[in-house]
Amino acid sequence: MTLHVHKYGGTSVGTADKIQNVAKKLVGEKKTTGNDLVVVVSAMSGETNRMTDLAKTMQQVPSAKQMDVLLSTGEQVTIALLCMALEELGQAAVSYTGGQVKIITDDAHSKARIEEIHTANVQADLQGGKIVVVAGFQGVTEDGAITTLGRGGSDTTAVALAAALKADECRIYTDVDGVYTTDPRVEPKARRLDKITFEEMLEMASLGSKILQIRSVEFAGKYNVPLRVLSTFVEGDGTLITYEDEDEGMEKALISGIAFNRDEAKVTLAGVPDMPGVASAILQPISAANIEIDMIVQNIAEDKTTDFTFTVHRNDYEKTMQILQDICNQLGAEKVSGDDKIVKVSIVGVGMRSHAGIASQMFTALAEEGINIRMISTSEIKISVVVDEKYLELAVRTLHESFGLSAE
Amino acid sequence: MTLHVHKYGGTSVGTADKIQNVAKKLVGEKKTTGNDLVVVVSAMSGETNRMTDLAKTMQQVPSAKQMDVLLSTGEQVTIALLCMALEELGQAAVSYTGGQVKIITDDAHSKARIEEIHTANVQADLQGGKIVVVAGFQGVTEDGAITTLGRGGSDTTAVALAAALKADECRIYTDVDGVYTTDPRVEPKARRLDKITFEEMLEMASLGSKILQIRSVEFAGKYNVPLRVLSTFVEGDGTLITYEDEDEGMEKALISGIAFNRDEAKVTLAGVPDMPGVASAILQPISAANIEIDMIVQNIAEDKTTDFTFTVHRNDYEKTMQILQDICNQLGAEKVSGDDKIVKVSIVGVGMRSHAGIASQMFTALAEEGINIRMISTSEIKISVVVDEKYLELAVRTLHESFGLSAE
Repeated sequence: MTLHVHKYGGTSVGTADKIQNVAKKLVGEKKTTGNDLVVVVSAMSGETNRMTDLAKTMQQVPSAKQMDVLLSTGEQVTIALLCMALEELGQAAVSYTGGQVKIITDDAHSKARIEEIHTANVQADLQGGKIVVVAGFQGVTEDGAITTLGRGGSDTTAVALAAALKADECRIYTDVDGVYTTDPRVEPKARRLDKITFEEMLEMASLGSKILQIRSVEFAGKYNVPLRVLSTFVEGDGTLITYEDEDEGMEKALISGIAFNRDEAKVTLAGVPDMPGVASAILQPISAANIEIDMIVQNIAEDKTTDFTFTVHRNDYEKTMQILQDICNQLGAEKVSGDDKIVKVSIVGVGMRSHAGIASQMFTALAEEGINIRMISTSEIKISVVVDEKYLELAVRTLHESFGLSAE
Repeated sequence: MTLHVHKYGGTSVGTADKIQNVAKKLVGEKKTTGNDLVVVVSAMSGETNRMTDLAKTMQQVPSAKQMDVLLSTGEQVTIALLCMALEELGQAAVSYTGGQVKIITDDAHSKARIEEIHTANVQADLQGGKIVVVAGFQGVTEDGAITTLGRGGSDTTAVALAAALKADECRIYTDVDGVYTTDPRVEPKARRLDKITFEEMLEMASLGSKILQIRSVEFAGKYNVPLRVLSTFVEGDGTLITYEDEDEGMEKALISGIAFNRDEAKVTLAGVPDMPGVASAILQPISAANIEIDMIVQNIAEDKTTDFTFTVHRNDYEKTMQILQDICNQLGAEKVSGDDKIVKVSIVGVGMRSHAGIASQMFTALAEEGINIRMISTSEIKISVVVDEKYLELAVRTLHESFGLSAE
């Protein structure tokens, strides 16, 4: 028996009508394909914000533990309503909260990690011909405390359930009809990709193509869960996220997409004495302040001092600059400088592994448009550049065209 | 250590402000008395209706099982918010859903009965100085399915918890400041009672003084839980519901209150052959149709036939008349008649046990106002009469005055 896990996000179940539409889709699919179906749903859109606002009127910094108790009600409402809609269409259905499935997590409230999933009851219900509806985003500790997996955690629930149930496919239904070569709002010629590898998807997701939560993609990769992103509202096959190996023999495009991130800021500590332990002396206080670091570049100058540059989220810019000034004084470095009007643009593709000259093609294309590159960072399947904020759209369109991604 | 269980209903926690007020009351009480506190809360007022409306858009007759999953989120929201408000005031607090306490019920969804309550975790939290906040109205089956106790079930939760924890008092906070001698909207001279016996309260509640759910009063009586009804919004001692025995030595008022019920209808099957089994032949089909019968009166006439009269809820009047017509034909009875413009007025009081002449005082008082009595029924501590609807207010005020209940 083929088993598909579906996930519908908040906008897909945002109103009574939309929930009924999802029910119709599911009943149609079950009739057509005969597949077993497990459906993971989010809270109705707006509910999470409404509850967060309520919480803030209660407590300046709402308790993470109580926030989980509060927010987990959102998905619980959706599972009940979707089961009713399914039953109204004559389809037997059963609802599960995270705690009822026993999606066991650690006790890191508001960002818990799944440790174990009990599947016996779900499997029995599937065998009984029922559609199983599971509340996304939530779990329960060994002690029975309600936890949530953090924003976007319903994707993680779907993938984790698919892995635990050994599902044939995990389908993430959303308000976009697949993964695009870049953001169509920036480049109207952007194309939907039929396939993308897990590795590319990871790079695309972390770089701001926020279709899937990065953790769910990692999870899917780890457990070899075939993942498909598709639209709740528009018919279509979406984008299948594949394992690279499957496509080894195929002619791969060099580049799959152009990702970008607007929320970056760049800081530099110049004239740092070049000695062992310096990088850690700089980065440890930053990470101790819970600031996440993205790109890191270090250049050693002739005079045995080094310039150390890295990027952080724009919200952390001021705080980072303050911490860095203290570090500058301690290390006897030259000076601190920064820029919070920068963005990161990246080309992503497994094809670049086996092709030389990709980096030079990228830099040339940008140079021809007069775009100055402020920082470069590369990985095996990605090249990222930092450029001035004002060049973002131009850079994305230039690279999209240069690497032949535009629709004909 | 003294332990009080408090219960706050939907209107007491209907807004963020009101939840914060409840938190302040609780922290104040804990500081003043040092009592251990368990707090049972309902859903914020309006939430249950909002969710019921949503459910009805999904399914013509929403599944009772899914309704329980849906509605139980209402109290879960309140427990989280109240804990946040308590913590904001520096008071350690812990929240429990019905399932987390393990309030084990049968599987009669939407009207489940509590079978067992696990108290170990709650007791440990109380010993740790925490205020324990419990979601009312809900429980869980042995299999982990979410159940609800039906409307007003938060009172039952509070009383059952008080019984299980051997609490010193169970305080039901509501929007009225106690139990009155009758409905003040009908008789402005109605007085708040400082005390009322469980038995009287049962009669008052079932007769339409809808302050407490009748099941919670029965529960409290069964487990000897001292119960107090008081206002969330107005200071005062409310009304203590006592065990009759405690007051044995005291001078009791003859009558504690005047109850009434507007929603009654009366039906009569006349000229029924008087033989064994007739009552059951009449009532069995009525109860099989899920119609609840209230008062029953039977008069045997000279000619060996009998007139059989009973009252039902006004909503069931038409249905009852139809069924009764069939029964009439089967039994060869004379005819069916009915009246759905009648009400029931009752005097309630444990004092009437030891005093003769109460009934005659009641009938005389009504007769002096020209109120015709259509039906009479008596129990040990209650006398009920059925009168024409139009006399309701006059009858209540007349009896209130006659039995000396009016405030000076």
